[in-house]
Amino acid sequence: MKPTLSIVKIGGNIIENEVELAHFLKLFSALKGEKILVHGGGKMATALGEKLGIKTTMFAGRRITDAKSLEVAIMVYAGLVNKKMVASLQALDCNAIGLTGADAGTIRSVKRPVTEIDFGYVGDVSRVQIKTLSEFLNIGLVPVFCALTHDGSGQLLNTNADTIASELAIGMSSLFSTTLYYCFEKQGVLSDITNDTSVISHINKKRYFSLLKEQVIAAGMLPKLENCFYALDHSVHKVCIGNMQMLQPGHQNFTTLTL
Amino acid sequence: MKPTLSIVKIGGNIIENEVELAHFLKLFSALKGEKILVHGGGKMATALGEKLGIKTTMFAGRRITDAKSLEVAIMVYAGLVNKKMVASLQALDCNAIGLTGADAGTIRSVKRPVTEIDFGYVGDVSRVQIKTLSEFLNIGLVPVFCALTHDGSGQLLNTNADTIASELAIGMSSLFSTTLYYCFEKQGVLSDITNDTSVISHINKKRYFSLLKEQVIAAGMLPKLENCFYALDHSVHKVCIGNMQMLQPGHQNFTTLTL
Repeated sequence: MKPTLSIVKIGGNIIENEVELAHFLKLFSALKGEKILVHGGGKMATALGEKLGIKTTMFAGRRITDAKSLEVAIMVYAGLVNKKMVASLQALDCNAIGLTGADAGTIRSVKRPVTEIDFGYVGDVSRVQIKTLSEFLNIGLVPVFCALTHDGSGQLLNTNADTIASELAIGMSSLFSTTLYYCFEKQGVLSDITNDTSVISHINKKRYFSLLKEQVIAAGMLPKLENCFYALDHSVHKVCIGNMQMLQPGHQNFTTLTL
Repeated sequence: MKPTLSIVKIGGNIIENEVELAHFLKLFSALKGEKILVHGGGKMATALGEKLGIKTTMFAGRRITDAKSLEVAIMVYAGLVNKKMVASLQALDCNAIGLTGADAGTIRSVKRPVTEIDFGYVGDVSRVQIKTLSEFLNIGLVPVFCALTHDGSGQLLNTNADTIASELAIGMSSLFSTTLYYCFEKQGVLSDITNDTSVISHINKKRYFSLLKEQVIAAGMLPKLENCFYALDHSVHKVCIGNMQMLQPGHQNFTTLTL
């Protein structure tokens, strides 16, 4: 039987709130078995950019990463957010190591091709270096990834944290039985967007398609679920969606996705 | 016989000049044997601090690191400078991994006690985790340290890069025959500060004391040399001081220090 690996992704809502973050890091550090953390850092980068007079360029509702915005992302994601989290985890006896995809060549990506939109310095994951990552896990380290990768030619690239988490889970599934946790502000996937307690406890692929057909799933949840089933289709054992409480042993009020 | 390890420290003059930095990274990546890079990032942090309206507080000519200045240092040292360097080294087939002392618990420090001066969030190195570092070297990684450590209780601390380099060299000397390279703008230790070609090629401890007595060594060089002989007194094999050309095989115009 393969050993287990948990890959936990947290978003801006946890990172931006010191109390929430401290609570999350305690839950994460208590998690049994091998584990990897992936974090974004969105609003903090926007806030620093504004202070520095760097405008966030948007196109069709999507953020464009120009050279200056990339520098801000590197400072906030790889610097401030990542290193403070690593230091806090160390204090919780969790031997964290902060990484971008460039570090130890762990995650290679390809700059997104220019079509109608030029997203700028944005990368789509092309390869996860599972050998190095499993060596880290073997010596008791807990990788903490921020949302940056590299193209192997010296360029750092902004990369979606949800995708980094799923690509890590897919890559590591050849060696581990991998569970992917997406922590966000809701308790799980809701059957009624206006009712926070309407958590759907389990979604398999058949149910997913019927939920899609019935248009039950909120628009913002669609790409998230698509990403989850993509991971499940590529050997990831299980995906869990909910708030940070789902990391607590015995807690059951969240959504589990399987094939 | 112990394997060799080179620990190279570069200062602001190289980091702040893109052409110089690219040249340095080529020389560094071509260096044979195990190696570790240590970098500062001084003026870039001051520049970002100024843009953000954070004043650099000085006391008796020495910089004080308050909470805001520390955040700037984390963003610049651990973020922008470190990660760009790592991505560039990866492109040169050098499997770099960027680290603060908090990452993988590699360098622990103690917050400097308050005496007449409160230096703020400044740490003095207390322990180097040589086991983890040698595991990194064993799997072909090249650690790239910025000038930040942690106290083990969740606090990151600003730490002098020269000291980080010498403490790493001292710690690793139990496993490696360690050479410490201090790269700066001069060709080496000068016997005449007004003459850039007056490089003293070799200084042993006896010569060091006589140079001190003759007051030949410039004031700024004194703490550097003291730090070097401290390292030599603690099992470091050799210390080299000069500009980046000293990393070029066959180059001889720099200062070598031995006991």
